[in-house]
Amino acid sequence: MIDPQRRWKPHGYKPEYAGLATFGGLPYTEDPAELAGVDVAIVGAPMDDLVTDRPGTRLGPRAIRAVGLEQGPHLEAGIDAFETLRVVDYGDAPVTPADPAASHAAIERTVGEVLAAGVVPIVLGGDHSIAEPDVRACARAHGPVGLIHFDTHTDTARELYGVEINHGTPMYRLVEEGSVDPKRYVQIGLRGYWPGEEEFAWQAKHGITALFMHDVRDLGIREVVGRAVVRM
Amino acid sequence: MIDPQRRWKPHGYKPEYAGLATFGGLPYTEDPAELAGVDVAIVGAPMDDLVTDRPGTRLGPRAIRAVGLEQGPHLEAGIDAFETLRVVDYGDAPVTPADPAASHAAIERTVGEVLAAGVVPIVLGGDHSIAEPDVRACARAHGPVGLIHFDTHTDTARELYGVEINHGTPMYRLVEEGSVDPKRYVQIGLRGYWPGEEEFAWQAKHGITALFMHDVRDLGIREVVGRAVVRM
Amino acid sequence: MIDPQRRWKPHGYKPEYAGLATFGGLPYTEDPAELAGVDVAIVGAPMDDLVTDRPGTRLGPRAIRAVGLEQGPHLEAGIDAFETLRVVDYGDAPVTPADPAASHAAIERTVGEVLAAGVVPIVLGGDHSIAEPDVRACARAHGPVGLIHFDTHTDTARELYGVEINHGTPMYRLVEEGSVDPKRYVQIGLRGYWPGEEEFAWQAKHGITALFMHDVRDLGIREVVGRAVVRM
Amino acid sequence: MIDPQRRWKPHGYKPEYAGLATFGGLPYTEDPAELAGVDVAIVGAPMDDLVTDRPGTRLGPRAIRAVGLEQGPHLEAGIDAFETLRVVDYGDAPVTPADPAASHAAIERTVGEVLAAGVVPIVLGGDHSIAEPDVRACARAHGPVGLIHFDTHTDTARELYGVEINHGTPMYRLVEEGSVDPKRYVQIGLRGYWPGEEEFAWQAKHGITALFMHDVRDLGIREVVGRAVVRM
Amino acid sequence: MIDPQRRWKPHGYKPEYAGLATFGGLPYTEDPAELAGVDVAIVGAPMDDLVTDRPGTRLGPRAIRAVGLEQGPHLEAGIDAFETLRVVDYGDAPVTPADPAASHAAIERTVGEVLAAGVVPIVLGGDHSIAEPDVRACARAHGPVGLIHFDTHTDTARELYGVEINHGTPMYRLVEEGSVDPKRYVQIGLRGYWPGEEEFAWQAKHGITALFMHDVRDLGIREVVGRAVVRM
Amino acid sequence: MIDPQRRWKPHGYKPEYAGLATFGGLPYTEDPAELAGVDVAIVGAPMDDLVTDRPGTRLGPRAIRAVGLEQGPHLEAGIDAFETLRVVDYGDAPVTPADPAASHAAIERTVGEVLAAGVVPIVLGGDHSIAEPDVRACARAHGPVGLIHFDTHTDTARELYGVEINHGTPMYRLVEEGSVDPKRYVQIGLRGYWPGEEEFAWQAKHGITALFMHDVRDLGIREVVGRAVVRM
Repeated sequence: MIDPQRRWKPHGYKPEYAGLATFGGLPYTEDPAELAGVDVAIVGAPMDDLVTDRPGTRLGPRAIRAVGLEQGPHLEAGIDAFETLRVVDYGDAPVTPADPAASHAAIERTVGEVLAAGVVPIVLGGDHSIAEPDVRACARAHGPVGLIHFDTHTDTARELYGVEINHGTPMYRLVEEGSVDPKRYVQIGLRGYWPGEEEFAWQAKHGITALFMHDVRDLGIREVVGRAVVRM
Repeated sequence: MIDPQRRWKPHGYKPEYAGLATFGGLPYTEDPAELAGVDVAIVGAPMDDLVTDRPGTRLGPRAIRAVGLEQGPHLEAGIDAFETLRVVDYGDAPVTPADPAASHAAIERTVGEVLAAGVVPIVLGGDHSIAEPDVRACARAHGPVGLIHFDTHTDTARELYGVEINHGTPMYRLVEEGSVDPKRYVQIGLRGYWPGEEEFAWQAKHGITALFMHDVRDLGIREVVGRAVVRM
Repeated sequence: MIDPQRRWKPHGYKPEYAGLATFGGLPYTEDPAELAGVDVAIVGAPMDDLVTDRPGTRLGPRAIRAVGLEQGPHLEAGIDAFETLRVVDYGDAPVTPADPAASHAAIERTVGEVLAAGVVPIVLGGDHSIAEPDVRACARAHGPVGLIHFDTHTDTARELYGVEINHGTPMYRLVEEGSVDPKRYVQIGLRGYWPGEEEFAWQAKHGITALFMHDVRDLGIREVVGRAVVRM
Repeated sequence: MIDPQRRWKPHGYKPEYAGLATFGGLPYTEDPAELAGVDVAIVGAPMDDLVTDRPGTRLGPRAIRAVGLEQGPHLEAGIDAFETLRVVDYGDAPVTPADPAASHAAIERTVGEVLAAGVVPIVLGGDHSIAEPDVRACARAHGPVGLIHFDTHTDTARELYGVEINHGTPMYRLVEEGSVDPKRYVQIGLRGYWPGEEEFAWQAKHGITALFMHDVRDLGIREVVGRAVVRM
Repeated sequence: MIDPQRRWKPHGYKPEYAGLATFGGLPYTEDPAELAGVDVAIVGAPMDDLVTDRPGTRLGPRAIRAVGLEQGPHLEAGIDAFETLRVVDYGDAPVTPADPAASHAAIERTVGEVLAAGVVPIVLGGDHSIAEPDVRACARAHGPVGLIHFDTHTDTARELYGVEINHGTPMYRLVEEGSVDPKRYVQIGLRGYWPGEEEFAWQAKHGITALFMHDVRDLGIREVVGRAVVRM
Repeated sequence: MIDPQRRWKPHGYKPEYAGLATFGGLPYTEDPAELAGVDVAIVGAPMDDLVTDRPGTRLGPRAIRAVGLEQGPHLEAGIDAFETLRVVDYGDAPVTPADPAASHAAIERTVGEVLAAGVVPIVLGGDHSIAEPDVRACARAHGPVGLIHFDTHTDTARELYGVEINHGTPMYRLVEEGSVDPKRYVQIGLRGYWPGEEEFAWQAKHGITALFMHDVRDLGIREVVGRAVVRM
C-alpha cells in the first residue's frame, strides 16, 4: 500500500495537485490482502461503452481523483469521516475497451473482492450501466439488496434501441434476476420524460417505490428520506 | 431530396451557419431511388464504440457538416469538384448506440446502397473500425479492392486487449477475409510506436506495401504517390 | 418531408447525435404545402447582427437542434406533446449575413408562411431583435396580439447607441406600430439595471403590465401566471 | 484621468467590448492627486502567488474589467450608484511576479494612497491573501476595523503547509496584529470542512462571531444581516 | 497620456497580466494633441458586424492588448523597434454596435486623426471589412496608395449575398473608388476556393498583381517580397 | 512498488484512461530502496510559483501522466526504450504551495535520491525555475555538468523584476555557482526578444555556446547536434 501523504508528512497534508492521484489522497492498494481492517474502499469503473448519448465518463474516475478532499470534520454535520473510518483507494476495475461484457465482469469481480474482505465499496463511474455489476456483486455476497436510487430516470427499460444491456436497463435486470428486492427499492428524484406507462406498470406490479421531484419539493427532504429508510 | 440552397437562391449561396446542416450545403436524401444520376454520396458513420482510448468521434459527422464549403474552382488545382460531379449527402448510417455489431452492419448496408446505385461513397467517421464495413461493402460490390491507407498506424492487429473487432484490427480482417487485395494495399505515413515485428512479418508475407513518414520526407510526395498508384 | 426517424424504425428511436439534425428529430420540410395538417412548426432565425454586446447567437438554432428530445409524456405534467400535436421542423429563415434588414424580412416572411398555413410557429433565435419580425408576422395574420414576455429587460428602448432597430428596441417598436396591444402586454421577470424612468413612464402611459423578479419571489409563480393570463 | 466614455459621447455609452478596459467603463487614473473629490476607487490586486490549490486569479482584475456595467438605477433597489457616488478606476497595485511580499507591500501602499485621499477603496483580487494588506492599510488609516467577512472558510489558520503568509491565514494575522477588532469581526456563510476545533477555540477566545450557512438558511438573510450590523 | 509602466519603474517592466491593458504596455492616449512627436499609433477597430461566417473578432483588439511584448532587440533581426520608434496606443475607434456604417465612419475618422498628426497607424481588427475605412483614410491623406495584401482571399467581390459592404468586398471598392492604385496593389498568399474567373478578369484588367501560395513555395519568400516591393 | 499493468495482464496492456495514473503506465514507487536495478526514474516537479506570466504548470506532471505511451519499438528509430531500460515513476517531489524555496529544496532532495541510487532522473515540470534544483542535484552528485539546453530564451538573467530566483534566472545561477561548466553548456533554439547585450556579453565571457533558431534552419539539425555533442 502506498500512502501519498507520507512524503508530505512534515507539513501535514499533500496539496491536491501534487503526489499520487488517489481519491482524496487516500492510501492506494491493488492487493486484496491489504483490505484487512479497512472499512471502505474506493473502486473506479472507467467505462462508457454503454451510453446511448454522449460518451466521456470513462474519464470520470480519474477526474474525480484529481480533486482533493479538505481535512477535518464537516462543519455542519460535526463528523470527520476519514477519522471515523479507514478508507483506501482500491484502484480501477480492469476494464477492457470495446468489450463491455468483459468490463462488466471486471467491475463485478473487483467489487466482489472488496466485499469478500468485509469492506464497503464506493464505486466511481463510468456510465449508468455499471450499476448492474456493482449491485450484482453485492447481491452475490449478501443476497437480494434494498436500494435507494437517486436519478432523473428509473433505468428500468427492458431494452433501449433493441439492446438489453446498456445505461437504461440495469434496474430492470437487477430486479428481474432477484439481485434487488423490489419491496426495498426506492427511487428518488424522477422527473422529465421517461419512462412511460409500461415501465410504471412493471414497477407497480413489483411494488417498487417511486418518489418524484415534485414529491421532494412538496414533502420536503426529511419526509422523503423517512419514506425511503422505512422500506430498507 | 431537399436542397438547402433553395431558400437562399436570391443571393446565390447559403451561409454555413444557417439552413439544413448537410455536408457542404449539398442536397440531402435518405432515399436510394434518388441516387440515380448522382456521382458521389456522403455517408456519415457516427460511432465510436470501438475506440480503445478517448471517445467522441460519434459526434464527428455532425461536426464536419457544420462547416461550410467555399464555392468555385480550387485556386491552385483549377477544378470545381461540385461543378464537375453531382454530389449529395445521403445522411448517416442508422447506427445503434452500445451495439457495435449492429452499427457495423448498418454502415455496410448504407454504403452498399450507395454502391448499388453506381455511386461513389465518401464516409465521414467515426472511429477507425468503420473502415471494416466500408471496405467490405466495396468488396461485396466489386470484388477484392486495392487500398491506399493514410495513417500513423497500420490497424492490422489480430486483436487489441483480446478484442478482435475494434479500431486497431480492421485491416488485418479485411486482408484475411479477402476484401482487400494485399498486393494492391499501400500504407502511407507510418510512424511512432506500433505495430511490431509480428505484424510487419504478416505484412511482408502478404506483400503489403508500407511507406513510412521518413519515406515521405526522403522521397517526396510525388514519388510516394507514384509508388502507391503503380500498385493499384 | 424527410423523417429522420425512418432509418431507425427497427429500434424505435434515433440517437440524438446521429441522423439529420432537426429539432427533436422531428420531420423536416421547407415546403409550405407540406404544412397542411401540421399543428406546430419550428423556425430557426440564425442571426445576431443586432446585438450590442457579445455575438454568437447566430449559431443558436443549430445548437438547439443538436440536442435531442426524450420521448413519452412529461412525468409530472402527464402530457405527451408530440403525441397530442403534429410538430415539424420548417428549417431556418433565409437570413442574409451582414444585412439585418434583409434577415428581418426573411424571418417575417418565413413565420408568415407558417401562420398562413394555420400553424403555430415556434422560433429559435438568434438575438432579441428577432422578436420584431416574429410578432409583426403574427399581427399581420391576426391583428394586434397580446404578449407574455419573459426577460430581464423590457427591450422597449426607442434607440440604443443611436440605432433604432436592434436587440433593445423591438418591444417599443411593436407597441408603437400597433402590432402588440399594450393592454394585453405583460412582462415577467424584470430585474437588474435597465430601463429607467423614461421607459417606465412610456410603459405606464400605454398600460403595459410589468412584473418584476421580486414579484415572482413575493407573489409566487401561480399568482404571477394568473395576473398575466387574465390580461390576454 | 482618461474617461473611456468620452469618444462615445454622441451615443451616450461605450459598448463593453470596446474602448479602454476600465472597471465598468469608469474614468481611469493612476495619479493620487486626481482622487480629490472622488468617493470610491477601484484597485486591482492581480496576484495568486499564495494560493495552495489552483492558480489563475492573477488574471482576475483584468477579467472583471472586461465586463461592462449597465446604466441607470437598480430596478429593485431604486438607486443609481454611479449617479450618487463619484467612482474611478485607480488601476492595479504594482505587484511583483514571484515575490509575494513585494506584491503585498504594493497592494498595501496602493490601497493606502486611496485611503489617504479620503476615498473608499474596492479591491479586485487576486487570491484571498490580499485581504491582509487591504485590511492592514485600512487599520493604518483608521485604527482597528470591524469586518464582515463572507466566505466558505474563516481563513484564520496560523499556518498552512508550514507557511505563515498565504490564502488561509490572513484573518488570523489581522486579528493577532490588532488590525481587525475581533469583537466587530463577523463571518457569514461558513460551511464544508474547515477549520477545526483549535481554530474555533481561538475564535471563541477572541469573541469573533461566526454565522454558518445553516444560520443563513434557518434565520434568513434579514436576521443574519441584523446580527452582523449590530456588531459594527 | 498614461504610461502603464510608470508604477512598475522600480523593477523596470510591468508584467503582462497586470496594469492598464494597452498594446504591449505602451503609453495610452485618446487625445490627438498628444500624438505630436509620436512615430506609430495603435488603433483598435473592434467590430465584426460585416462577417458572413462566425462572429467574434469584435473582441480582437482587447485580446491582442492582453498579451505582452518582450523587451529588447529582436534576437535575429537585431532591431529594438520600441527603442527606435516612439509608439503609443491611441485606443479604439468609437464603433457603434449594430450600425456598421457608423463604425466604418468612426474607424476612418480615428485613423484620419493619426495620419493628420503625421503618425503611422497600425490597426487591430475586427473583421476584414475594416480595411475599407483604414485604407480610405490613408488615401484621403496621401492620395491613392500602394498596397501589399497578405490573405487567403482577394476580398475583391462586388457583393456577397447581395450585400455591397462586407468582409469580402473592401478591395474591390477601394480600387474602384481610386483609394488603391491597382498598379501598386500586390496580393500575397492566395489559395483555396475563391475568387473565380470573373474576379480574376477584373484584377487583370486593372493590372493587380496576385502571388499565390504556390508562388511562395516555388519562388521563395525573398523573391516574392522582391516582386512586391518593386511595384510600390 | 505498484505495477499498474498487473490487473490488466490477461490482455497485455492497460488502457491509458484506466488504472493508476503513472507516467506511461510504468511501475510506481516512492521508496528509494526500490530504485535498485532501475535505469531511469521519472520525477514530477509540480510547481509554478516562480513564473512571471501565466501560471498553471503546477498541473503539468499530472497532465503528462494522464497520457499513455504506445508499446513496442519506435518505428523509425527501431529501439524499444522500455525493453532496453528499466524505467519507473518515482512520484512527485513533495513541493510546498506558496513556499518556492521549500519546493526547490524538495525537488533537489528528490532528484538527489534518484541520483544516489545510480539512476538517471527525468523531471516533469513545472515552471523553468525547476532547472535550478534539478541541475544542482546532478552537480552535487557528479561535479560540474555539461548541459544541452533547448529553449527560446537563455534563462540567464541575474534577476527579473528585481527577483533573483525565478523562471528567468536558473542558468545564470547554475553557471555562477559552478554547477554547470560553461564550456560544456550549449543552448539550442534561441529566438525572439530576449536576452540583450549584457547577458550575451556574460555568456561570451564564460564561453557558453549559443545556437539560434536560424542556426537550426541554416545548418540543419545534424550539424547543430554535432556542434553540441562535441562540447560535452
